[in-house]
Amino acid sequence: MKRFAIAWLGLAAVANGAPPPITAQVLESSQPSDWRRPDPDNTLYLDLPAGRVIIELAPRFAPEHVANIKAMVHDKFFDGLPIGRVQDNYVTQWGDIDEIRVTEAAKRKLPDETVIAWSKSLPVVKLPDADSYAPETGWLDGFTVGIERKPSSQVWMTHCYGTVGVGRGDWPDTGSGSELYAVIGQAPRHLDRNIVLVGRVLRGMELLSSLPRGSGALGFYSDEEKPRRTLIRGARLAGELPEAARTAIEVLRTDTPLFTRYVEARRNRREGWFVRPAGHIDVCNLPIPVRDIK
Amino acid sequence: MKRFAIAWLGLAAVANGAPPPITAQVLESSQPSDWRRPDPDNTLYLDLPAGRVIIELAPRFAPEHVANIKAMVHDKFFDGLPIGRVQDNYVTQWGDIDEIRVTEAAKRKLPDETVIAWSKSLPVVKLPDADSYAPETGWLDGFTVGIERKPSSQVWMTHCYGTVGVGRGDWPDTGSGSELYAVIGQAPRHLDRNIVLVGRVLRGMELLSSLPRGSGALGFYSDEEKPRRTLIRGARLAGELPEAARTAIEVLRTDTPLFTRYVEARRNRREGWFVRPAGHIDVCNLPIPVRDIK
Repeated sequence: MKRFAIAWLGLAAVANGAPPPITAQVLESSQPSDWRRPDPDNTLYLDLPAGRVIIELAPRFAPEHVANIKAMVHDKFFDGLPIGRVQDNYVTQWGDIDEIRVTEAAKRKLPDETVIAWSKSLPVVKLPDADSYAPETGWLDGFTVGIERKPSSQVWMTHCYGTVGVGRGDWPDTGSGSELYAVIGQAPRHLDRNIVLVGRVLRGMELLSSLPRGSGALGFYSDEEKPRRTLIRGARLAGELPEAARTAIEVLRTDTPLFTRYVEARRNRREGWFVRPAGHIDVCNLPIPVRDIK
Repeated sequence: MKRFAIAWLGLAAVANGAPPPITAQVLESSQPSDWRRPDPDNTLYLDLPAGRVIIELAPRFAPEHVANIKAMVHDKFFDGLPIGRVQDNYVTQWGDIDEIRVTEAAKRKLPDETVIAWSKSLPVVKLPDADSYAPETGWLDGFTVGIERKPSSQVWMTHCYGTVGVGRGDWPDTGSGSELYAVIGQAPRHLDRNIVLVGRVLRGMELLSSLPRGSGALGFYSDEEKPRRTLIRGARLAGELPEAARTAIEVLRTDTPLFTRYVEARRNRREGWFVRPAGHIDVCNLPIPVRDIK
């Protein structure tokens, strides 16, 4: 039987020598100004035995929570703490799983930062498509957002794959940031506006999503599994490391005409493989490209 | 420092002795008639070294593809074949990855079964919420569906976490079923109506979602990784096995008044932890309970 690599889900057009996919064409036409370098002071490296997870923090959305996390990182608070919870199709959670502590420099109680105020001056790029959870959706500073102009006049970061949030107990305790989670499954949008979000994973999601699931309630590791938990080697801000220890990446800007063309290409996939372009997209279904700086 | 298990994302109300979550109350009030036992002749066991993945096949949606898969399973076609692709936030794919073959009993070419015809007589339970991709969504036979009554008069199974589909090359080749995939990330709804879906995983998703990601293009394992691929021990229909070798489970019916109450409880989470019930839900965000038969 002839050996033949099957081509599907987008590979087909490339394999057959047809024109490159529209999405690829848009990205190939990008200029250096269409990309941005994340602020090193808001770039968190979570170094695990298997590699580096790079998280972009979002001070516009949760300034006090982000500041608290940065204070704890500065004190090396997360070093040696475990990834303690992996719940399938939900979240991977790490940090101060077994206790409730913060470092001296950090605060135990923080204000509610689940939403920010809507303003016409916010540089939001809106998506034209319907959403199950929010009147409008789009992007702000490279983060996905939900928008409710009336009656609440609120904007909030949405829970998508790779979004990072702050574990908390019962209201009104919003969590200190000593325990963080990343979404590893279908966007749990019902959590939007219920919990503080502080950023998103730019690279290394597979290091969080492919971990063994915890067999305890809510995916926490059982006592038997605890000795095998993944431990955090170190959590550092890129800005605190020498240049040589940083990972040089850039992210596609979300506030450019090119990004709008990119969204359009993803709303209507015209690569050879597709039969029926959807004509729509969910805000959580658009990967924002990240690439190495050469 | 006092040791204290942090409680969040739904656990809080239980931990604090408050009334049980509304979702739990609905399920506790269920009667035996609110549950169904999947048809053994449409229940596919994918037995892996780490355990069993249970897939419910959907003959209403793709009768010829399901029949073809069953013919191949009967011939033990999948036994020893690899899980050959794991692409983060997308799909895990298994079967005839390296070649294109079918068994003698199966067909190489099958008709387009990406959609079925809409009819008022279909026992669809509809969701009242907006959807980014389809005019209407809901459930049919326990599977999530999109509905477009006009102009196309079509119903189709939607790609959600755990949905199982048939790998294919370029149109109009719809794939034989010798290569199957399961969604392991954010619902890739742009694939709806572009590829044939044949079922969904009822149990064992974590065995597919926590596998190492492939480092090759589209998550295929590289030549270097191939020797470490997970191999399928056996793929069997439950109906072909003796009772003792089957896994006795039942699934919450989706066509009952209780299911409607369950959906409502998930649309508005009123457990103590939640501050703002969403008032909406995405069709891919509703877990359909599966339990052991005791």
